[in-house]
Amino acid sequence: MEFEEKTISRKEIYKGPIFQLVQDQVELPEGKGRAQRDLIFHNGAVCVLAVTSTNKIVLVKQYRKAIEKVSYEIPAGKLEIGENADPEAAALRELEEETAYTGKLRLLYDFYSAIGFCNERLRLYVASNLEKVENPRPQDEDETLELLEVTMEEALSLIQSGDICDAKTIMAIQYWQLQKR
Amino acid sequence: MEFEEKTISRKEIYKGPIFQLVQDQVELPEGKGRAQRDLIFHNGAVCVLAVTSTNKIVLVKQYRKAIEKVSYEIPAGKLEIGENADPEAAALRELEEETAYTGKLRLLYDFYSAIGFCNERLRLYVASNLEKVENPRPQDEDETLELLEVTMEEALSLIQSGDICDAKTIMAIQYWQLQKR
Repeated sequence: MEFEEKTISRKEIYKGPIFQLVQDQVELPEGKGRAQRDLIFHNGAVCVLAVTSTNKIVLVKQYRKAIEKVSYEIPAGKLEIGENADPEAAALRELEEETAYTGKLRLLYDFYSAIGFCNERLRLYVASNLEKVENPRPQDEDETLELLEVTMEEALSLIQSGDICDAKTIMAIQYWQLQKR
Repeated sequence: MEFEEKTISRKEIYKGPIFQLVQDQVELPEGKGRAQRDLIFHNGAVCVLAVTSTNKIVLVKQYRKAIEKVSYEIPAGKLEIGENADPEAAALRELEEETAYTGKLRLLYDFYSAIGFCNERLRLYVASNLEKVENPRPQDEDETLELLEVTMEEALSLIQSGDICDAKTIMAIQYWQLQKR
């Protein structure tokens, strides 16, 4: 069986600071004709499951304009230009900026957030040996963050209440649950 | 602490069949000034963890233009116009179209795939009492799918190899692992 969709043409519709929107015309496999694919190209991001010595997960409370709500998430951030070659360094940078923690990272999952239309690639790391940094790098200017450290029971109830409502954070908490058994 | 970013203006940049792109100018909280937010508005989607009576997970192999690769995912699909009020019916429809299975659904997680810039809301269901439908609804015309049923060990090795590489499918497999203990 053939699967590949061959690109006949590509048109850039928008290029912004966070992502690019392109429209592809493709040739479908198996002689099924043509179709249009609207795609979002994103530079990728990193996120970190950080569990403290008292067995609490570090969460960041922030406003998300896309859903017009506050949400609780694991520390995360976009890869900046030039960071693609070293996503682990980017993850350490984000962890320090958002939480003032540093630690030793290990890659858990390397995945796409919204594979149907978007190439945003996310790396989820787990941080061990967490320590507070004395003079941490400052937060991004356009971000307003509040830090929380919660137990697993509290994290699970934040999922139930919908305060935790994003894929990467639920994945991190499920991984933490799997480790605890 | 204030978190909300108040919308000063919104401009539609693109409206397509799958999503809309808008650009907001916002007033940041805490007197931090203004910022631009590029947002993707999506109608939402559903996906299903379906485990057979022989304890295998049902996966769909398909080509994903956004990443120019084939991937293995749990059955999933967009909410069609009018389906927002009944996402469970949409999940049953997608399950039947893609796999010819039907079953009894229970909601596991209601979450956002890419909360930083996109409002795509995904509902992940688990299907029990799986049965093959005799004359299933046909697949979408522009989709080329191959069905697989794999054990948990096989699913975990598909994550390792990168053939399973999307958030919803990894979340579903983690949940399945948690249930099996």
